[in-house]
Amino acid sequence: MAKEIKELTPRSESYSQWYQDLVTKADLAENSAVRGCMVIKPYGYAIWEKMQQELDRRFKETGHTNAYFPIFIPKSYLSREADHVEGFAKECAVVTHYRLKNAEDGSGVVVDPEARLEEELIVRPTSETIIWSTYKNWIQSYRDLPILCNQWANVVRWEMRTRLFLRTAEFLWQEGHTAHATREEAVQEAEKMLDVYADFAEKVLAVPVVRGVKSETERFAGAIDTYTIEALMQDGKALQSGTSHFLGQNFAKAFDVQFLNKEGKREYVWATSWGVSTRLMGALIMSHSDDNGLVLPPSLAPIQVVIVPIFKKEEDLQKIRTRLEPIIAELKAKGISVKLDDSDNKKPGWKFAEYELKGVPVRLAIGGRDLENGTIEVARRDTLSKETYALEGIASRIEDLLKEIQENIYKKALDFRLANTREVNSYEEFKEEIEKGGFILAHWDGTAETEARIKEETKATIRCIPLEGDKTAGKCMLTGADSKCRVLFARAY
Amino acid sequence: MAKEIKELTPRSESYSQWYQDLVTKADLAENSAVRGCMVIKPYGYAIWEKMQQELDRRFKETGHTNAYFPIFIPKSYLSREADHVEGFAKECAVVTHYRLKNAEDGSGVVVDPEARLEEELIVRPTSETIIWSTYKNWIQSYRDLPILCNQWANVVRWEMRTRLFLRTAEFLWQEGHTAHATREEAVQEAEKMLDVYADFAEKVLAVPVVRGVKSETERFAGAIDTYTIEALMQDGKALQSGTSHFLGQNFAKAFDVQFLNKEGKREYVWATSWGVSTRLMGALIMSHSDDNGLVLPPSLAPIQVVIVPIFKKEEDLQKIRTRLEPIIAELKAKGISVKLDDSDNKKPGWKFAEYELKGVPVRLAIGGRDLENGTIEVARRDTLSKETYALEGIASRIEDLLKEIQENIYKKALDFRLANTREVNSYEEFKEEIEKGGFILAHWDGTAETEARIKEETKATIRCIPLEGDKTAGKCMLTGADSKCRVLFARAY
Repeated sequence: MAKEIKELTPRSESYSQWYQDLVTKADLAENSAVRGCMVIKPYGYAIWEKMQQELDRRFKETGHTNAYFPIFIPKSYLSREADHVEGFAKECAVVTHYRLKNAEDGSGVVVDPEARLEEELIVRPTSETIIWSTYKNWIQSYRDLPILCNQWANVVRWEMRTRLFLRTAEFLWQEGHTAHATREEAVQEAEKMLDVYADFAEKVLAVPVVRGVKSETERFAGAIDTYTIEALMQDGKALQSGTSHFLGQNFAKAFDVQFLNKEGKREYVWATSWGVSTRLMGALIMSHSDDNGLVLPPSLAPIQVVIVPIFKKEEDLQKIRTRLEPIIAELKAKGISVKLDDSDNKKPGWKFAEYELKGVPVRLAIGGRDLENGTIEVARRDTLSKETYALEGIASRIEDLLKEIQENIYKKALDFRLANTREVNSYEEFKEEIEKGGFILAHWDGTAETEARIKEETKATIRCIPLEGDKTAGKCMLTGADSKCRVLFARAY
Repeated sequence: MAKEIKELTPRSESYSQWYQDLVTKADLAENSAVRGCMVIKPYGYAIWEKMQQELDRRFKETGHTNAYFPIFIPKSYLSREADHVEGFAKECAVVTHYRLKNAEDGSGVVVDPEARLEEELIVRPTSETIIWSTYKNWIQSYRDLPILCNQWANVVRWEMRTRLFLRTAEFLWQEGHTAHATREEAVQEAEKMLDVYADFAEKVLAVPVVRGVKSETERFAGAIDTYTIEALMQDGKALQSGTSHFLGQNFAKAFDVQFLNKEGKREYVWATSWGVSTRLMGALIMSHSDDNGLVLPPSLAPIQVVIVPIFKKEEDLQKIRTRLEPIIAELKAKGISVKLDDSDNKKPGWKFAEYELKGVPVRLAIGGRDLENGTIEVARRDTLSKETYALEGIASRIEDLLKEIQENIYKKALDFRLANTREVNSYEEFKEEIEKGGFILAHWDGTAETEARIKEETKATIRCIPLEGDKTAGKCMLTGADSKCRVLFARAY
């Protein structure tokens, strides 16, 4: 494997080609033989697993338990909630048969026409319908509430244009589905989970996000309100990174899920659902990485520290190994994942490039001269800077350095977002500014018509009505009608 | 909820009804609206999650990494390996369309006939074909080997008769798929993973297993050799609990996966695959549980210790709480999961029955008199025995007790298996003994014909040719022909 083949298209040349190059060359994922479905490779999956662990811990800390519901949804169930089926019908994988057989002409295996299902099954695009049909049997009285379930699962949405992690026909995600006795409690739950997502994005992914509410047009199919976290990618486009829905009583009504309240009266149950997916891998990549490859926050790096010994003779390597052993043990005792790459069939320069591509946060290099001096070279992936450290006390310094890198990566992304978030006061200005990319805060009259015209003319969408920040009223940039507050516009993935 | 409705059909009356009652009443799983697909409820899923964690750790310790491959398999891929497609064709869920639309007569949503897939997609029943079509691109030379991947996933096999956990249309599992440069290495891998499964079954599930090799008839479709672990359930039937397959070069040839060996010659790659599934939940239940409900080994119990305070007045409860606080903290510090159930809308007797049903290994009960005496009542779920312990030093005693329970549950199951494993020397005797249930060791001439006749006449199958134990040659009990060693027969799930 020559070094050249691992080089990425520079971002300045083509951001989308750079992304595609990075995802495949850093061994994160690749396209499969099945249209729109990806293979998540071991290195990419290891990052996703770390995300899962962190999320799962947060879900459990907030009182949720995991469960598992069927992958198939009877067609009639999907149709019960009118907005919901309208939103998903156009991208459904449909199972119609349950058996193959040998072709009579000996040409191979064919679908057995006699094994046709009475009712077609949909491969779940999301699970509200199958879950609420189940909750009907779990809920009789207020004592059965709340139900706080989460599911880790695969889902299928038959997208026409797909991109690795960002938009794939099959993707992995978690979907929380909760049931509550009151509207207030359900709204609180939806907001709480948005905060969980925002905290996770900022602390773990090191991706700053704007929390907000979607406009009616951009709502989840079947929701009363959709909360969202929106991140800004390096190319100035927004990426919706997680959503939490207040579903009102829509699904309870569709599946007739009622409960006896404390006063002995029957009421429909209130619902939320919330999810994040492997799309977060896209957010991670497009927030931090550079032309050399991935930049991973230490909290998600499968390898946090790689050590490359510089040696010619086996006995030199042996000396280095001996000196490093207690250091490696100390690092591991601190919960830091370390890899010593002492393979002799690759040159140090090749290894340096490889671990940069893979986004390993800290690289240590050590040779004979260093041993004599009691030093080691420490390279940071985030800044690409190198420094020489004393071997004495190196484990603690690296522990601190990993924290510093985590913070720095976040700060860099936040600075970028702040520098690329602008207020705009006229539609003319808006049309100019949107071409430059970034988040634009502007007044909007609150109508779907205005929103649609802006989208048509500029390809920008309302990412959200931010929950925080300036809430001053004004006049819609397009129609001049009253606006309650500025909303966040961007072109989006 | 009256106590009565939680009562189970006694095992002596109907073992299969007892199983069904237990799975649903202990909140492990239930049937869904989709034929043959189950809902795994939070309590059942919590046990499965513990199994996953233990298995995943063992896979990683043996050098494997997780990855994810598409849920769909093009029909033509499934057909590439002749035995494989023969084995799975009759139980395939087939996706034929990718869109729904509104019916023209307004009657609802229908499959859009214009959205027919060019090639049908099979919902994976297992992933050898899609994975080996991927490995083709990953493997060029011996340096790319071995590949040691595992996948946690859902799979679908359209079974006609289903039973919760034991045989469901959709189930959850892990499937390891490895690629090797030599036959020896692949065989070693298949054997190693069988040992991992056996160790997990015995140490974690507390289920003793017989390790062995399947007869040709019982092999995985596409394998050269199938290794298996077989457990004996309380009703005398065997349960295949995990399999590990040496696939030879079958899939490499089907997908043309070759590598350049050290001598620069092209060779086909050697393969293994291995899997365990939510079926293990069935093994767990049918190995240990009783007419009162689940019996869980402490290693898998979501709640290891439950504390039921006995009180009338709130101030009495308060005193108990104060005394228990440091004990609960100490138990948690030891990594023991504890639940204090101080709800006042249920009586202690109801709680006792409920936690017995749920299989909580240790139940502590404490009232005012106990507080005065500095004692606490300790009930073991495995033996249903009660003892009074001093509160002083209780946390350490419980820690020891949990270990003792884990060992005792295993020993009880092992004793049962040993008492129900018999050698038989004539076919007459065999036909009598098989009616009593249990494992029967008998001589077999090694032919598929004899095996088929025994199965037809007695419903017993060869569970495996054991790897350990007596290897003395003899004469087939049915035909009198030579037999290399006794093989293990049983009726099976």
